[in-house]
Amino acid sequence: MSKKTLKLGLFGFGCVGQGLYSVLNQTKGIRASVEKICIKHPEKSRSIDAHYFTTMADDILDNPEIDVVVELIDDADAAYYIVKKALMNRKAVVTANKKMLAEHLPELYALQQEYQTPLLYEASSCASIPIIRNLEEYYDNDLLSAISGIFNGSTNYILSQMWDNGKEYSDALKEAQEKGFAESDPLLDVGGFDPKYKLCITILHAFGLFVKPENVFNYGIQNLNKQDVTYAQQHGKKIKLLASAQKYGNKVTGFVIPAFVEADNPLINVHNEFNGIILQGAFANSQFFLGKGAGSSPTGSAVLSDISALTYDYRYEYKKIAQNSDLEFSQDQLLEVYVRFVDRNDLNLSDFDNISQRFESAAYSYVIGEINLDKLNNLPWTKNPNVSLIVNKILSTVKEEFATPGHKELEYVV
Amino acid sequence: MSKKTLKLGLFGFGCVGQGLYSVLNQTKGIRASVEKICIKHPEKSRSIDAHYFTTMADDILDNPEIDVVVELIDDADAAYYIVKKALMNRKAVVTANKKMLAEHLPELYALQQEYQTPLLYEASSCASIPIIRNLEEYYDNDLLSAISGIFNGSTNYILSQMWDNGKEYSDALKEAQEKGFAESDPLLDVGGFDPKYKLCITILHAFGLFVKPENVFNYGIQNLNKQDVTYAQQHGKKIKLLASAQKYGNKVTGFVIPAFVEADNPLINVHNEFNGIILQGAFANSQFFLGKGAGSSPTGSAVLSDISALTYDYRYEYKKIAQNSDLEFSQDQLLEVYVRFVDRNDLNLSDFDNISQRFESAAYSYVIGEINLDKLNNLPWTKNPNVSLIVNKILSTVKEEFATPGHKELEYVV
Repeated sequence: MSKKTLKLGLFGFGCVGQGLYSVLNQTKGIRASVEKICIKHPEKSRSIDAHYFTTMADDILDNPEIDVVVELIDDADAAYYIVKKALMNRKAVVTANKKMLAEHLPELYALQQEYQTPLLYEASSCASIPIIRNLEEYYDNDLLSAISGIFNGSTNYILSQMWDNGKEYSDALKEAQEKGFAESDPLLDVGGFDPKYKLCITILHAFGLFVKPENVFNYGIQNLNKQDVTYAQQHGKKIKLLASAQKYGNKVTGFVIPAFVEADNPLINVHNEFNGIILQGAFANSQFFLGKGAGSSPTGSAVLSDISALTYDYRYEYKKIAQNSDLEFSQDQLLEVYVRFVDRNDLNLSDFDNISQRFESAAYSYVIGEINLDKLNNLPWTKNPNVSLIVNKILSTVKEEFATPGHKELEYVV
Repeated sequence: MSKKTLKLGLFGFGCVGQGLYSVLNQTKGIRASVEKICIKHPEKSRSIDAHYFTTMADDILDNPEIDVVVELIDDADAAYYIVKKALMNRKAVVTANKKMLAEHLPELYALQQEYQTPLLYEASSCASIPIIRNLEEYYDNDLLSAISGIFNGSTNYILSQMWDNGKEYSDALKEAQEKGFAESDPLLDVGGFDPKYKLCITILHAFGLFVKPENVFNYGIQNLNKQDVTYAQQHGKKIKLLASAQKYGNKVTGFVIPAFVEADNPLINVHNEFNGIILQGAFANSQFFLGKGAGSSPTGSAVLSDISALTYDYRYEYKKIAQNSDLEFSQDQLLEVYVRFVDRNDLNLSDFDNISQRFESAAYSYVIGEINLDKLNNLPWTKNPNVSLIVNKILSTVKEEFATPGHKELEYVV
């Protein structure tokens, strides 16, 4: 079994980079060594020798000694430049940057094909959970009908703290930031953008479909308040920020919206910075994956797995892209939603197809009804901070004969 | 992307075989067709045309038209004959037979090498959970320090029914059998043999080590009673039949014993026929996998995934066998155990290294103390039906500097 010894060039030397350096030095099995590290702030004191560091990206990107570029920076635009140039210079790349990936997947896929150079990004989606690799390697297309779960550790931490410890939203957010779970721009997390980027990446590996982030509806947790939490508690449910993609016939739908999760759903036990993913497969069979979704260690462990895979010349094959030329992304999905509002004029009840509950009082009002996902994008009240939107149930709109085998017996999915 | 169309020969046409036949006919993506089915009882009426069936194994094994043998029978000895001959005839094999596998892994590994023919067996271990593939493909050796969990759906069903519904052991066992979760010989399940076979298989893919089933200590759930359940409930714990393998330096230990699982351990939420697996990896990072571990659908879905993988010429590489020539199996592991007994003379208290609790009354007596796993094999009271043994804590016996990175911060493992 001949394993290559890889020479790595790192971009960024925060917690993940430092942990990676130290683990690579400790383990004998993964033959990879850090050669050069590109940093932004040369003035900071560093834990390792100065000769490792540079501020010039090209000291790594144009260095013929370096085989693998490990990109661990925050800035999506700079990351895009780095990853693109590295691939064009035929350097394998490991990255955790979901925003950059989600926005450039078609091009990054094409670059990998053109330059026959691997780009791995397990850490980009749900950090430590090996979801990309499982989708890529294990779940053939006919074996998969849905993927859903909690894709963002920061918001899940906030919701857990609000729930279990009765904390206010703003205190919980501050705590998540202090613990290093949150993106530097908190809106990426709490607005549901970060899980949306991850959903786009996983849809590519789950179904072979490129989906632009701007085509996926996302609704964050900013507007949730104690009334929503109380409503959920009274009904034995919890609120989780749900990322969901479902395949119906040749359509794939997707969204990121808070959802009520029931007691028999394993997502209800996903606490704090953990992420959880449910795959719905053939024979009506569900799988659940749980792992830490935020923080430097989980990210580092996924980066390390990718580096290890590169020592065996592993690359994503993207098999499903060729298999599924007739699949298309759609927002045609019926949802049963709970909508809390303050002023009845904020809502237009005719937006709902079927209202099953309506409660109004001076302090608290909500409606439960059906609405199509493709409508949500254009409704002004989804931008209103006095309104909160929570999915109560995903309703299929397609006839059963078009459903993927096993779909009818969804067990876990809300 | 050229996919082969595989011609399958099935052994057995029970629920799994029939479901497989029907799913393969429904899906277009997996190019495989059932050509011949070997059955034991030709007199039974069948749902498909008679020309498919034979009672002669060699009609499949010597048939040059057949590429893949799918072995779905109960009898481990017959399965061994079938799998061996199929490999020697260079037919790829998919099997779910854990007893047969665990007892013959070294030879079956050698046959695969010699005849360059793949043998896949994802369904053998925890049915629907893709654990073999994850261990084989994702968790490089340095990234893994422990694997533990609930590996048997039948006993977990029984424990759940005793727990949640207050059922008696015998009623719960009968129900598990009626639902098709139990092996035809119930002792394989309730005595902890079935999870032990699975543990041996997963240890090979986790650490590259061949372990004989007879070298792994297993203790079943037959002796558990309501007193044990009550003790656990009073302490906020549940009892689960735990399969565990831990790597310390160059030693791998393993056992199957009931264990107290605490509220923050995800295994506590593994109900009924579900299985749950915790992988402990680098950076002190844990992953949890949950899925159905018994029943025909989960098994069928894993078999289907293996067939699908064969259309891409997938085979297990067993990379870790070559990497880990210095690893050895050991039973040198300190455990803190709870032992309930009736007659004080049944136990010899000097077997325990350190007794922290001792309770005696006319109706109920137990002791909590430390004991080494390698001692348990030879203690007569482990065969006494009036005694029950439950692991309270796994205590490491090795110095910290030998521990795999991350081992110190185990979060989930009992």
